[in-house]
Amino acid sequence: MNRILLPALAVLLLVTGCVTAPKNTLMQVSTIDALLAGAYDGQMTLDELKEHGDLGIGTFDALEGEMIVIDGKVYQARTDGAVYEMPDQATTPFADVVHFDADHTELLCGPLSAEDLQEKIDQLKPNRNLFLAFRIDGTFSSMKVRSVPKQEKPYPPLADVVKHQAVFEYKDIQGTVLGFRSPAFVKGIGVPGYHLHFISKDRTTGGHVLGLCLNDAILQADTCNDFFLTLTDRDEFGTLDLSKDRSHELEKVEK
Amino acid sequence: MNRILLPALAVLLLVTGCVTAPKNTLMQVSTIDALLAGAYDGQMTLDELKEHGDLGIGTFDALEGEMIVIDGKVYQARTDGAVYEMPDQATTPFADVVHFDADHTELLCGPLSAEDLQEKIDQLKPNRNLFLAFRIDGTFSSMKVRSVPKQEKPYPPLADVVKHQAVFEYKDIQGTVLGFRSPAFVKGIGVPGYHLHFISKDRTTGGHVLGLCLNDAILQADTCNDFFLTLTDRDEFGTLDLSKDRSHELEKVEK
Repeated sequence: MNRILLPALAVLLLVTGCVTAPKNTLMQVSTIDALLAGAYDGQMTLDELKEHGDLGIGTFDALEGEMIVIDGKVYQARTDGAVYEMPDQATTPFADVVHFDADHTELLCGPLSAEDLQEKIDQLKPNRNLFLAFRIDGTFSSMKVRSVPKQEKPYPPLADVVKHQAVFEYKDIQGTVLGFRSPAFVKGIGVPGYHLHFISKDRTTGGHVLGLCLNDAILQADTCNDFFLTLTDRDEFGTLDLSKDRSHELEKVEK
Repeated sequence: MNRILLPALAVLLLVTGCVTAPKNTLMQVSTIDALLAGAYDGQMTLDELKEHGDLGIGTFDALEGEMIVIDGKVYQARTDGAVYEMPDQATTPFADVVHFDADHTELLCGPLSAEDLQEKIDQLKPNRNLFLAFRIDGTFSSMKVRSVPKQEKPYPPLADVVKHQAVFEYKDIQGTVLGFRSPAFVKGIGVPGYHLHFISKDRTTGGHVLGLCLNDAILQADTCNDFFLTLTDRDEFGTLDLSKDRSHELEKVEK
């Protein structure tokens, strides 16, 4: 009887096993305004983060570098210009991930600037009131990325940190631009509009995208109807002033 | 061997069975700004809504009345002043629910106005950056509630609908005030601050709370670290302008 029951048990567990964030759900750790305010303490392990998605962006404990989650692996782009695969026990204070499952694929022919690229995606996916996850695998005639250095307590605001960011420019590089387009109404919680990170095909470099010129690439996009926000009950978060408008700070930090 | 495996299977299913929204998760259908803009078409059945929580507030398809979810039952407070338990196949365009599991209980002694009550909860639960669900079971020397009438297409904005709301005032009534306190940063998505609905103990009347005087009651509160937002991919939602600030409309509608 075990020969019937044990496989049945396995199948049932697969069917009913708790997927923390189901497909089409963008899962976010903390809020962008908390990050702008200096809430850099890691609050979720990468092990747990990966249960919520296999593609995404974010940062690490103490704001150490830019996070790129791709094909279920989590990479850290540091201020030395290099990229490191991170261990499961590392933590993140802010991240967005999704179980990526493209519902649209398109060949892109350049040259396309970052702005052109965003216009192109807006044409293909005009519903700005839902979340959109995407990855763009291809060659770029230029790619400008930045990373941010690890911070010491008391943490300065993010707008001050980016004054000391490390910027790298590459010519004729292969790799993946990935990220999200979020609705205007996430203001204060997430980044309205586009938020892009890059990782090279050989996984040696990457960062937060400041500018690019795309030659040719494949765009894969995944519309997300659901948004799951997870917050910490630590005092660090509870005592922040999250009522003020930090749009100007966000603009300084993103560009 | 079945005697061991079958109970083990049952236990495992209980442990791993997919709860769509886990405890401490506030689940919201659509955004308050979409509702303000007239997105009144039901998009989730009550059957599905109840999977996400057993306590909450909201409205129904075509904006027909105020929703009160209590002890796993969904009630509709209509403009005739009466309350009706709703069938599972009815739908909601906007709702907030939680699997209520109080982490704090407190006796409240009146007289307390709605403002006093909110101050009291703020003292007991000072972390305004997390979501708070609560229910207050007791006697009220006065209770002023409203409900909104079912709308016909093309739907008018909510600020116009409330001009024709039905208002009811009760003296010395027993019942439950329930609802949520949400962080300031949900502006545009949810209702920042307090959002309260009432249902009488005998389940005959209720509505959206406009004012109250509490005599004595038991407060139960449940802090929620997680927020799950579910959106529709229907054109009705996708084509709304959800980028503008509707705070003033919200204020008109709530008070």
